[in-house]
Amino acid sequence: MGKRVFNFNPGPAGLPLPVLEKARDELLDYAGTGMSVLEISHRSKEYEKINQDATDLLRAAMGLPSDYKVLWLGGGASTQFFMVPLNLQLPGKPMEYALTGTWAQKAIAEAKLYGETKVVASSEDKKFSYIPKNVAFSANTAFAHMTMNETIHGVEWPYIPQVPKEVPLVCDASSDFLSRVIDPKKFGVIYAGAQKNVGPAGVCAVIVREDLLTRVPEKVPSMLKWSTHAKENSLYNTPPVFAVYICKLWLEYMKQIGGIPAIEKMNIEKAKIIYDVIDKSKGFYKGHAQPDSRSRMNVTFRLANEQLEENCAKEATAKGLIGLKGHRSVGGMRASLYNAVTIEATKALAEFLKDFQAKNQ
Amino acid sequence: MGKRVFNFNPGPAGLPLPVLEKARDELLDYAGTGMSVLEISHRSKEYEKINQDATDLLRAAMGLPSDYKVLWLGGGASTQFFMVPLNLQLPGKPMEYALTGTWAQKAIAEAKLYGETKVVASSEDKKFSYIPKNVAFSANTAFAHMTMNETIHGVEWPYIPQVPKEVPLVCDASSDFLSRVIDPKKFGVIYAGAQKNVGPAGVCAVIVREDLLTRVPEKVPSMLKWSTHAKENSLYNTPPVFAVYICKLWLEYMKQIGGIPAIEKMNIEKAKIIYDVIDKSKGFYKGHAQPDSRSRMNVTFRLANEQLEENCAKEATAKGLIGLKGHRSVGGMRASLYNAVTIEATKALAEFLKDFQAKNQ
Repeated sequence: MGKRVFNFNPGPAGLPLPVLEKARDELLDYAGTGMSVLEISHRSKEYEKINQDATDLLRAAMGLPSDYKVLWLGGGASTQFFMVPLNLQLPGKPMEYALTGTWAQKAIAEAKLYGETKVVASSEDKKFSYIPKNVAFSANTAFAHMTMNETIHGVEWPYIPQVPKEVPLVCDASSDFLSRVIDPKKFGVIYAGAQKNVGPAGVCAVIVREDLLTRVPEKVPSMLKWSTHAKENSLYNTPPVFAVYICKLWLEYMKQIGGIPAIEKMNIEKAKIIYDVIDKSKGFYKGHAQPDSRSRMNVTFRLANEQLEENCAKEATAKGLIGLKGHRSVGGMRASLYNAVTIEATKALAEFLKDFQAKNQ
Repeated sequence: MGKRVFNFNPGPAGLPLPVLEKARDELLDYAGTGMSVLEISHRSKEYEKINQDATDLLRAAMGLPSDYKVLWLGGGASTQFFMVPLNLQLPGKPMEYALTGTWAQKAIAEAKLYGETKVVASSEDKKFSYIPKNVAFSANTAFAHMTMNETIHGVEWPYIPQVPKEVPLVCDASSDFLSRVIDPKKFGVIYAGAQKNVGPAGVCAVIVREDLLTRVPEKVPSMLKWSTHAKENSLYNTPPVFAVYICKLWLEYMKQIGGIPAIEKMNIEKAKIIYDVIDKSKGFYKGHAQPDSRSRMNVTFRLANEQLEENCAKEATAKGLIGLKGHRSVGGMRASLYNAVTIEATKALAEFLKDFQAKNQ
C-alpha cells in the first residue's frame, strides 16, 4: 500500500482514517446483512437507521432546535444555489446577498433567474480579500444570503451579519460546515455540500426551519421542493445511500473526539500554525486574505512569482503534501485545513514551507 | 463475516462480488495516490481518468455513435422526470408519453408542469399488466417518452415503438439499463439511475444526442441544463465521485464477462427459470404481467392470499433470499433479477419457490 499522504485538497478532501477503515472493513457485509451497504435497499430498516442516525448525530452536534429539519439531498451546493430562491421567493420582494467571492457570485447568478437580487455588501473591489464590516440586510427582502467561507479566496465571516427578525438568514456553509460552533437559531437555512468537512462528494446537507417549507410555489418539480424531502425524511426518491453512510461514520467519529468544540479548537490551532509561517516569512509568503477575515479552512497565499509557486507545489507533492495549488481561476497557493486534516499534517506543511523559504530566498 | 445473501432487491440492488472486492481492496489507497477514492479531488488526473473510463466503457458497451454525449449526474431518474421536459420542450408543442406503470405516471406528472402532455397509449385499464401493442407517437410532439421497464408492475417493452424520424424518442431505462442489446440510434435520450444494473445509488447516466442540447431555454438554472454538463464533461460541479467509480468497476467487469450480449443471455435464462416455476405451478403462483409483456428484470406474482405471501417472503429471507416483497403500493411478490443476480441465485430461488408450493398447497 502507498504511504498515506497529507491531503490539503480543497474538496473533495481527506476523511479521518478510522472512518475509512470502518467503511473498508464492513464494505462486503453491512451489519451482518450479508450485503454491502452499496447493495442494501433504501427502504430497508438498515438504511432507515443510517439515515436517522446521521440526522440525529447532526442535530446533536449542532444543537439544532426541534423546528429545524435536516435533509440529505443528492447534488451539492450548486443545486442549492437555485433551490434557495426557488423555495424561498416571495412575490414582489427582492432577494439580498452579500458578495464575498466566487461562490457568492455563483449563488447570485442563479437567484437572478427567479427575480430581483440586491447586493447589500461586496468585497469585489479588493479581489474578495476581506469580509465587509457591519453588513446589515434590510427588512424588505425574501431572504438574506451569506457564504460563510469562500474556498477560493480564503476568507471567512468573523461575525454573523445583522438581519431583521422576520427575515430568514440563509447560509452556504459548504466549506466550513461543522468546523466551528455556531448558533443555528440565527439562521433560517444552512446548506453544505458534504465533501469538505463531513463526508464524500455526492450529498448535500440542508437544514431548514420548518416554517420556511410552505413558501415554495405549488407548480415546481417535486424533487426541487425542500418540502417533498422534509415530508419523506429524505426518502422521497432513492437517496445517495453510501454518501449518507460515510457522513454518519464521520459524525460518529466527531462525537467520539469531542464534537464541534474539540474540532474548532483543533481548527484554530491548525490555522494559526500556517498563518504564523506566512506572517513570519517577511513577505516571502504573502497571504491573500486580510487578517481579520482570514479563513481557518483555506489559507490562500502567493509567492514572488508563478514559477516559484509551481516549484513549491511540486516539491510539496513529492514530499506527500498534496493539493496546495490555488484554484485555477485565481492561481497562487492554497492549503485547505478541513476537519480531517490533522495537527501532524499541518505541522509537516509548516516545516516544509519554512524549509522551502530557506532554500529559495 | 455474515454469509453473502442472494439479493433480489428492486434497487439499490446487488453488485458483482469482484466489484465489491476491488472497491474494498483499494478503499484506503487509490491507484497508489495514498488517498482513498473518497478523498481524491474531482479535478485530479485520477478522477478525470475514472470519469473518462466510465464514459468510454459505457460508449463501447452500448455502441454509442459519436454524436451522443454521456453525462453522469447526481440524483436519479426522479430528477430526469422534470429535466426531460425542461430540456426538450418546444413552444406550442405537446409532449407525448406512453403510460405503462407507476414510473411513467410519475414522469408525466412532472412534465405537466411544463406544458401540455398527451398519453398516446395506456395500460392502466388492466393494472399496468401489459405493454400496449403497436404504439405510435405523432409528428406533432416535442418528444416521445417511454419507460422501458416498469419495476413495480414487472412489465417491459418487447419492441421499440414507432416514432416519426424528426421526433426524439426518450427512454427511462432505469430498471433494464445495459441488460439487453438495444440500438441506441433509435433514441434521442436514454436515462437511467445506476442503482439497479450498473452501480450504486447516487448517480444517473444520461445519454443525449448532441443536437438536442440546444433546445433548453436560456433562463434555466445551470445545473438543470444537460448542455452545462455536456460542455464540462460531467465536471461542471463536484460529481458523485465514488458512485461513478463503482460504475466504472462494474463496466470493466461487464466487459470482462462478455459485455451486454453475454449479460442479456444470462438475463433471458434467469427470467425463464423463474417464469417457468410460475407457469408450472398450476395457479399457486399467479404472474401479474401478461406473458408477452413480461419483464426480465422484475418478476411480479401473487399467491392465494396476503398471509401466504408474507410467509413466503419471510421464509425466503430466513434462507438468505432477500427482497422478495412486492412494492408497498401494489403488494404481492417481486423477484428482481438485475444484471448482478447470478444463475446460481436464481436457481436457489426457483428451488425455494417449488418447495414452498409443495409445503403449502
